[in-house]
Amino acid sequence: MFQNFNSTTSPKQGPPRLKRLRNWMSSKNIDGFIVPRADCHQGENVAACDERLSWLTGFTGSAGFACILKEHAGIFIDGRYRLQILDQVANEYSPIHWPEVQLHDWISETASVGDVIGFDPWLHTVLQINTLNEALKGKGISLKSCDNGIDAIWEDRPGKPSASAWSHPIALSGQSVKEKCSKISTIIANNGADSAVITLPDSLCWLLNIRGADVRRTPIVQAFVIITAQGSVKLFSDIRKFKNVHFDEWIELFDWSDFECALQGSTGVMQIDPESLPYAAFKALEVGSSKINYAPDPCILPKARKNHTELEGARLAHTRDGAAMVEFLSWFSQNDPSQLTEIDIVETLEGFRIATGQLHDISFDTISGSGPNGAIVHYRVTHETNRCLEQNSLLLIDSGGQYKDGTTDITRTLAVGTPSLEMCQCFTQVLQGMIAVSRVRFPKGLSGRDLDALARTRLWEVGQDYDHGTGHGVGSFLSVHEGPQRISRTAAVQLDPGMIISVEPGYYRAQAFGIRIENLIVVQEPEQLMHSGSHSMLDFETLTYAPIDRQLILRDMMTDYETAWLNTYHSNVFEKLTPHLTPEASKWLRTATMAI
Amino acid sequence: MFQNFNSTTSPKQGPPRLKRLRNWMSSKNIDGFIVPRADCHQGENVAACDERLSWLTGFTGSAGFACILKEHAGIFIDGRYRLQILDQVANEYSPIHWPEVQLHDWISETASVGDVIGFDPWLHTVLQINTLNEALKGKGISLKSCDNGIDAIWEDRPGKPSASAWSHPIALSGQSVKEKCSKISTIIANNGADSAVITLPDSLCWLLNIRGADVRRTPIVQAFVIITAQGSVKLFSDIRKFKNVHFDEWIELFDWSDFECALQGSTGVMQIDPESLPYAAFKALEVGSSKINYAPDPCILPKARKNHTELEGARLAHTRDGAAMVEFLSWFSQNDPSQLTEIDIVETLEGFRIATGQLHDISFDTISGSGPNGAIVHYRVTHETNRCLEQNSLLLIDSGGQYKDGTTDITRTLAVGTPSLEMCQCFTQVLQGMIAVSRVRFPKGLSGRDLDALARTRLWEVGQDYDHGTGHGVGSFLSVHEGPQRISRTAAVQLDPGMIISVEPGYYRAQAFGIRIENLIVVQEPEQLMHSGSHSMLDFETLTYAPIDRQLILRDMMTDYETAWLNTYHSNVFEKLTPHLTPEASKWLRTATMAI
Repeated sequence: MFQNFNSTTSPKQGPPRLKRLRNWMSSKNIDGFIVPRADCHQGENVAACDERLSWLTGFTGSAGFACILKEHAGIFIDGRYRLQILDQVANEYSPIHWPEVQLHDWISETASVGDVIGFDPWLHTVLQINTLNEALKGKGISLKSCDNGIDAIWEDRPGKPSASAWSHPIALSGQSVKEKCSKISTIIANNGADSAVITLPDSLCWLLNIRGADVRRTPIVQAFVIITAQGSVKLFSDIRKFKNVHFDEWIELFDWSDFECALQGSTGVMQIDPESLPYAAFKALEVGSSKINYAPDPCILPKARKNHTELEGARLAHTRDGAAMVEFLSWFSQNDPSQLTEIDIVETLEGFRIATGQLHDISFDTISGSGPNGAIVHYRVTHETNRCLEQNSLLLIDSGGQYKDGTTDITRTLAVGTPSLEMCQCFTQVLQGMIAVSRVRFPKGLSGRDLDALARTRLWEVGQDYDHGTGHGVGSFLSVHEGPQRISRTAAVQLDPGMIISVEPGYYRAQAFGIRIENLIVVQEPEQLMHSGSHSMLDFETLTYAPIDRQLILRDMMTDYETAWLNTYHSNVFEKLTPHLTPEASKWLRTATMAI
Repeated sequence: MFQNFNSTTSPKQGPPRLKRLRNWMSSKNIDGFIVPRADCHQGENVAACDERLSWLTGFTGSAGFACILKEHAGIFIDGRYRLQILDQVANEYSPIHWPEVQLHDWISETASVGDVIGFDPWLHTVLQINTLNEALKGKGISLKSCDNGIDAIWEDRPGKPSASAWSHPIALSGQSVKEKCSKISTIIANNGADSAVITLPDSLCWLLNIRGADVRRTPIVQAFVIITAQGSVKLFSDIRKFKNVHFDEWIELFDWSDFECALQGSTGVMQIDPESLPYAAFKALEVGSSKINYAPDPCILPKARKNHTELEGARLAHTRDGAAMVEFLSWFSQNDPSQLTEIDIVETLEGFRIATGQLHDISFDTISGSGPNGAIVHYRVTHETNRCLEQNSLLLIDSGGQYKDGTTDITRTLAVGTPSLEMCQCFTQVLQGMIAVSRVRFPKGLSGRDLDALARTRLWEVGQDYDHGTGHGVGSFLSVHEGPQRISRTAAVQLDPGMIISVEPGYYRAQAFGIRIENLIVVQEPEQLMHSGSHSMLDFETLTYAPIDRQLILRDMMTDYETAWLNTYHSNVFEKLTPHLTPEASKWLRTATMAI
């Protein structure tokens, strides 16, 4: 079982640690210290040794940061975590609504003139520090790069991860390391640079066809890379991690400790991504004679556009994962829900995924939210919050698997007992939004921003909305949240064939219920047009196959187009999954996918 | 009759004038000269004396520019004019596809190292010249501000317009000059400036509640304004134009000739809009001691958000204009179309508008495109192009009126005889797009970009699209094309209550037919939500009332929501207009607005 249900932190741990951090600050003659959630790779999942924010404060969310001053301790969290934080941190920490309140605003108002705020330069990007420096200009408050105060006081801090990496075979990646490095070196050369630094683990894992176990849920290897415009690669990490990986001779392995030196000694034009490069790496480059060229990480777009092999893998992974979902749903239909808890749901579903024999990990901790817990967008059940499923409520299950051929992410909302009319109305509106995006055809050149409204118009009609994006990019046996493609009001990157993206509109009524329906889709060139169109178009192939709860759909609210999409989808689900099912699940699926 | 059907230019006029311009260039020791369509107010409609581009080349489009070199003459036109230009200019002029090819690229490739390109600094904005200078850096080609070469060789060039201006009464503007100037001076002060220069005529006409007759179709007065953060105003123009206008004493009138001096003598912080300020004005400011503060014209947003009085006026104007449209449509239904030409359509429709007794001008030259002419998005019929209406074709009519209480803009596409199934399919898809935008409710904060896709999804489904925005802003007895609100893929400005905007999806099949359906709509706070929504929403009120040709609608393609919208709209059209109609038109309208 991958998931556990323990509360890993307690609000009580915060105050004594805060006191010790302030003592350390005083010993270093600084008046403040910033503690981000991020590690030096800016990953969403971090290793145990990088859980500094939760160790200090008790807050376990996947995004946020604290700023500790002598008298104040602000903890900055976005809309997803405003309820959760109240249970997780002691009163000594003041939750700050971020990004509405920016760090520099809070510092300007809270710190004193003359104060020096320390930060660990490996944990902040160039852009973050430059922006903060710029905003604090003229306020009489300065930033100071320093050692990490948490590392200084955290006695039993775990070591850096050292799990073995392995090769991700070409049968799954579809492209050799040679080809990828050649493509990236061309991008670097076209950009007028001689080399590029890559610090995002999923970028370098994609580039070097490696995977690893440095963090949970995402099979990445933590490392840094310098790649030249000629295609040669220096890889900086813990060398022991690569004993099972054979690299060609043009890929040289170095220890972590050599990275700073390599930057200091670099020459020529060095391409860096200010949105991911640690500030410390930038300062090391400044010591050397190289000229800086700012550009996005060159792996990001090629990685986002999945090739034929990766898409074939994704289809297999989704069929397998869909079959596990159906076994679970069939099991669920045969049980008395009042005898089940949220944790039972998580364990049983994971059990069916494990039974496929091919589950490498779950792709994130399953969200199993019953009744009011469904309205907490990033709910993770613990023994303390675990609820029995109530009659006449909704159950929201958002889960996914890491398979070597693909990463899945699926949300289904299920009726428990007899749902109310309002629940069915809201569910149908959310479904209409998901269908609108799934079936849209659109001209080349559009970004996710241009499509976001399609998922929301039915909710908007009745004054409702959801406070998250419509969809995020998904990696290929990599991060379940992968940029740059997204569907949201701020998604500016053009949608290109091969990009995998989620479509997951929702509706949340606080203290009552939550609804979300999520499929993964992939941008494709349409096979053929119904009429001879004059414009060059794209559309989406749906990757996720699992039934949508028909008990929650109000047929009369649906248009004929929507109903036709749903019936075709369900008929494809049946056809695709039934060869992989137990007879019992297959029988259940036949009913669950009947036309409405 | 406002509209005429003469071709005002001929390709033959171009070559001799080009020769004389080159002689002038040679006498001035310059190697090139740029001739924009724009006047010094950057207006879409220009006075006769500013028709330099058409005088020189024969090209009469509303956007474009020429760059004349010793050996080459490039004329830069966008997608709308690529066919038209072929008929209008002689071979000496090379049409350049702009913006695909930028002026600086063409100059770099075509001019010689050492060449000096002249330009009239009053006809180009600060942004245009700065961008061009930046792009030509290092190419060995320089720009030089100089006199206008066209004015030097155009012997019978008309004088600057001198028509009388008049006051736009508070009963129509809804806000006194005092209140408006006070609002604008606050914006300037909040921006840290002491004064602002305003050179856009519709901005200053809005600010000073004046209208005039300096150009056709748009009732603007050409002038420049300097307004201080204390709210005092200096108005630079032809003083004689204001003999019928009473200004308060804090509005001082000066002659055109004083403007440059006033800028040269200005002090303090001066706010300018680099997207509209003439480069010459910027150079004059540089002579003085004032500090420049770049910001958008402060009138643009307050002007775009129409007040209650302006909206009441718009509703009256649209009812009047809708009734004229219905009289026309009723007349059309009783005539044998094969006996009618495109010009007959224009003249008859204008006649019905004039018969309202309140038409000040048409708001633009009516587009009356029969059959293949309908596919030319900016078609304007002349005696040469005039077509008889053919049986079994489509007629596209895009027209509008300037009434003192409001500006209208409406497009209807009519069946002539029996339209083909394909025509009806395309018409229905376009209609579905118009309905989708008209009935959408959306959260505050969205821009037109976020809604653009809604108008297009039905066309996209069959690989079709239209190569223009979905909608443009409209003024209040001012420009029929008014920014900054728009619905298009590049429309970034937030939609606010009171903004009037067109919604006009279309479909064009070259050499065959054109379809466009256009209503004006206004952003409003919804009167009430059907359910208790949790989000703060906006929606649109439709201003335009005129029937949509039911013969072209395929009922089976429409969803119930769309049909319900159409039937409600048609029933409102009947109810609203019938009190203003002749009995004959009223009878026709009853049939034309029957539920489908």
